[in-house]
Amino acid sequence: MIYSKFTKSLTNLYRSNVTKRIINIPSNKLIRNTQPIGFIQNRCYSNPTSKDKLIIFDTSLRDGEQSPGVTLSTEEKLEIARHLSILGVDVIEAGFPIASTGDFEAVARIAKDVGPIMTGREKIGKPVVIAGLARTIEKDIKRCYDAVSHAPLHRIHTFLATSDIHLKHKLKINREECIKRAASAVLYAKSLCEDIEFSSEDSGRSDKDFLCKVLGAVIEAGATTLNIPDTVGYTSPSEYGELIKYLIENTPGGHKVIWSTHCHDDLGLATANTLSGILNGARQVEVTINGIGERAGNTSLEEVVMNIHTHPASYPVFHSVNTQQIYKTSTLVSSLSGMVVQPNKAIVGANAFLHESGIHQDGVLKHKQTYEIMRPEDVGIFNTNIVLGKLSGRNAFRSRLIELGYGDMSDADFNRAFERFKDLADSKKHITDHDILALLSDQVSGYGESQLFQLRSIQVVSGTHEMATATVKLFDSVKNQELIDAAIGRAGPIMAVFGAIQRLVQCKVRLLHYEVRAVSEGMDALAKVIVKITEDFDSSGLGTEDLEKRTKPKDSVSESEMKLTKSTFHGHGTDVDVVLASAKAYVNAINRMFESKKQEATGKRRSFLKERTANV
Amino acid sequence: MIYSKFTKSLTNLYRSNVTKRIINIPSNKLIRNTQPIGFIQNRCYSNPTSKDKLIIFDTSLRDGEQSPGVTLSTEEKLEIARHLSILGVDVIEAGFPIASTGDFEAVARIAKDVGPIMTGREKIGKPVVIAGLARTIEKDIKRCYDAVSHAPLHRIHTFLATSDIHLKHKLKINREECIKRAASAVLYAKSLCEDIEFSSEDSGRSDKDFLCKVLGAVIEAGATTLNIPDTVGYTSPSEYGELIKYLIENTPGGHKVIWSTHCHDDLGLATANTLSGILNGARQVEVTINGIGERAGNTSLEEVVMNIHTHPASYPVFHSVNTQQIYKTSTLVSSLSGMVVQPNKAIVGANAFLHESGIHQDGVLKHKQTYEIMRPEDVGIFNTNIVLGKLSGRNAFRSRLIELGYGDMSDADFNRAFERFKDLADSKKHITDHDILALLSDQVSGYGESQLFQLRSIQVVSGTHEMATATVKLFDSVKNQELIDAAIGRAGPIMAVFGAIQRLVQCKVRLLHYEVRAVSEGMDALAKVIVKITEDFDSSGLGTEDLEKRTKPKDSVSESEMKLTKSTFHGHGTDVDVVLASAKAYVNAINRMFESKKQEATGKRRSFLKERTANV
Repeated sequence: MIYSKFTKSLTNLYRSNVTKRIINIPSNKLIRNTQPIGFIQNRCYSNPTSKDKLIIFDTSLRDGEQSPGVTLSTEEKLEIARHLSILGVDVIEAGFPIASTGDFEAVARIAKDVGPIMTGREKIGKPVVIAGLARTIEKDIKRCYDAVSHAPLHRIHTFLATSDIHLKHKLKINREECIKRAASAVLYAKSLCEDIEFSSEDSGRSDKDFLCKVLGAVIEAGATTLNIPDTVGYTSPSEYGELIKYLIENTPGGHKVIWSTHCHDDLGLATANTLSGILNGARQVEVTINGIGERAGNTSLEEVVMNIHTHPASYPVFHSVNTQQIYKTSTLVSSLSGMVVQPNKAIVGANAFLHESGIHQDGVLKHKQTYEIMRPEDVGIFNTNIVLGKLSGRNAFRSRLIELGYGDMSDADFNRAFERFKDLADSKKHITDHDILALLSDQVSGYGESQLFQLRSIQVVSGTHEMATATVKLFDSVKNQELIDAAIGRAGPIMAVFGAIQRLVQCKVRLLHYEVRAVSEGMDALAKVIVKITEDFDSSGLGTEDLEKRTKPKDSVSESEMKLTKSTFHGHGTDVDVVLASAKAYVNAINRMFESKKQEATGKRRSFLKERTANV
Repeated sequence: MIYSKFTKSLTNLYRSNVTKRIINIPSNKLIRNTQPIGFIQNRCYSNPTSKDKLIIFDTSLRDGEQSPGVTLSTEEKLEIARHLSILGVDVIEAGFPIASTGDFEAVARIAKDVGPIMTGREKIGKPVVIAGLARTIEKDIKRCYDAVSHAPLHRIHTFLATSDIHLKHKLKINREECIKRAASAVLYAKSLCEDIEFSSEDSGRSDKDFLCKVLGAVIEAGATTLNIPDTVGYTSPSEYGELIKYLIENTPGGHKVIWSTHCHDDLGLATANTLSGILNGARQVEVTINGIGERAGNTSLEEVVMNIHTHPASYPVFHSVNTQQIYKTSTLVSSLSGMVVQPNKAIVGANAFLHESGIHQDGVLKHKQTYEIMRPEDVGIFNTNIVLGKLSGRNAFRSRLIELGYGDMSDADFNRAFERFKDLADSKKHITDHDILALLSDQVSGYGESQLFQLRSIQVVSGTHEMATATVKLFDSVKNQELIDAAIGRAGPIMAVFGAIQRLVQCKVRLLHYEVRAVSEGMDALAKVIVKITEDFDSSGLGTEDLEKRTKPKDSVSESEMKLTKSTFHGHGTDVDVVLASAKAYVNAINRMFESKKQEATGKRRSFLKERTANV
């Protein structure tokens, strides 16, 4: 039944020449998606290499945003989604719409604003598919559809656990109910949209034959993509590959759908498992930029793509990612999420293309092929590095922005960015791409009028033998008044500044994480500060009840840890002055905290311990 | 001939009951190593699981130290080696003795001081093997032997490239000469010591049958371990596994020796490749803590070990690593090397054991097995977290130090550590294990009397609308006098402090990297600052000649990049005050730079572009 339905829709596809229609899609017009996009791509498009298209499904904004302490604003999510579209990913999983009205709105905004964009996708010929996550519950699925359907191409992604351990302990249902629940959810989703993905949570520990039954039932109900998560990062490449192969071969209707991988990196094998999945028949990979995600994170988009890029003959697939956009996207995600990339990270780490050893360098110089398997410019590590300065005008700045993927900036945003650029040029001689990206990521995070508290000025005195003292002036945009106060800091000037800010906002805040990184080289480098905070229970900076718990053996995720993760807020700030950058970051985090409190009070903020996210 | 020689030495082994002798080795006595340790371990020791022993060969101090900007002092290398011994690794590659007298001395010190230590190795029954690297050149091998032979168990590791591309472009020799050079080097090494490892550089791109010939010749000459590096991180798990299998089966004498993996992580596959090597017959793995190393780094020790630990049934090997020491060792290496670990790093990242999502947490609580595949305490993530404070006495502090692996500290070192602990307790309410480890890593890096410049005090004034001003007092231990001066900083107070320090040491320094991280939570958290510097060519912070090069397309490792990597120095400093910690780190880096200049002048420092290190 399903097969004939697909055959019919394929026939329609040829008749109506939808392909051409999608290519010429007007960037501001929404067109109803009627085809399962993955299916079309793999079965209908012919391509010169006669390989299958590998669908790159980016979940940085959904699974990646589940990383502890990552709290992206809607504007930040939009900016990341825009870059993912330019990067050339096929599907963006934009969020989990039922989680809160805030999540719903973010997904809907991405669907509306990024869904139709064709910038940078001319070769791909169509815009990105916007997906949303939903449990196998009717209200979840409806809510998801309402958010994603603003995009010309959209997908509903629903999931249910299939391992006995989950069925018994978490869902408290039996196997029959599991099949029924999965199939009826997909059937309902299919009544809303053609492109449906189903994930079997904890596939790795599910009974294989039972899994085939569940998956067969959801194919029958209309699922077009089946995702097989290795939720706990437990399987080995051979086990995972065998599982994919087994499922494709033994699931009724398995050859009619796209199979997808979703691997976690707990044992450092996410990339290997994903590639093994591809070799065994998977034609979609779920990945995140920089491998962000819960615990040790998800599979890195950049690692999977560059494996295929450097070994085209080894994989039966091709991809549409513009690899030269990888580094910029990596920098943006790291900057906005506050998740730093270690120097020895594959592909995007600061050292990834640097050689230290003499013999090695000698080899590189004597014959490039001796060691280089990828060139820095292949992943867009600034291959021009044009440096701007005090005398650079609006045109020079604008053309750098276009190169950096900020071509579609509004005039107002451009003017603000140019103003900040000129300010920076007063204190910094040479302004690099890194500096510009840092300025822009600050701008995305909404410095300026929209913020509750705005930093006006600080003044600091400190030294080895004296008590640090700070005076801070904030503007409260709700009360529309300037606030000014001073505080001392036993732990130096930055803590004195934080102390003064706490006094001004009248809220006790615990500092969980503080980190500074120079954006580029030199004494006048921009410093980027990342802080993570939570509301405090006790003013000493470490609650006594937590202290008590911390002295107990830590053999499971304790309640205090959950307290820590459930409402942490990160903030970032950039300035040539580390103290000032710290103050900006701290105020930014406090603004996020107040915004979240406001949203929670009005029902816009998800409540963390109930139904926040999923392990798929 | 070689085989009978081995048979004889095995017979001798049984007769003299060397096994027992090694177990009872006196910790301060040096015993001449007469057996190839790998060989003995795998072929002679029986064990209850009837699995082979996997030899863990840690090269953090050799290949890891090749990371750009990592410059470890001898004291720091010793400290890391001590912890590697307690961790239970089987072999420590301590360095490349021919590179400089400084390298030689570090390897010799490790051989003398760490080579005989049995602390934490009671179950293993013998101390760690100390290995050194040498090219296939007689003077390298002799120099290596002179350094490592101070250890009761020691190994010479020699290497030669075997790919045509290397032979032609780098070594400029033909295949016959390659075989001859490798075999005669091993023969010479064998005349000095029994335990010989040979690495075929760039094995991945070598002709397989030629590789078998080279390896057969070195086995014939007496090599006991054959290491197969995937130098450029290019192969896939299946290719690498097949290569290992092919070599074992087709190399004359291949079944008599230990085969070893050495993988790089350029495509994110180092761990998978290493595990594939084990599944195909390798019984030694070359790894580093946190996966540090050139470019994207080496295989992570912790990932390989925890894969075997969590999947004992999947691998035909067992290991002797005490996994509960992993986290401490990781923290130490990250701290001393200045190579940060990203939060989503497998096993040792800050988030590795943290869950964010509500559904997920619910699963963890309802049934632990639902998601936990490793427990934090399995890798030694502080399972007690006893917090010390102002009132904690010497005994409490001493017992924490023992738990943290600093049991064998001298009384003088203990007193200095206790003094710093009490100082910290004055400004910080609760002192955690993280704080203590940060204090100790500072102490290892030699704050105090041994340093050329010692920071005495600083004083700072800054603010939004004023020029930051800093006054710094240093003590110059050579001139035996206090120096004091002030400077302004257009880029804030920290840069003003750095400017004043530059004036005092009368040396132009370029700041390449600046990074701060809070060691723990709270407003009074210790801040750990890492800086990387190099001597400056022009005082603006970015040399004009570099600037010119940076605007050119970057399609190979340019000369300016080599300049950057050849003499960069990192420094670290810890304090509750970020400004003070920055000053300490900057002075620490400057001391390393002056020390290196002194050593270079006296021939103790390796000259980077000549014969620094190797790609094996």
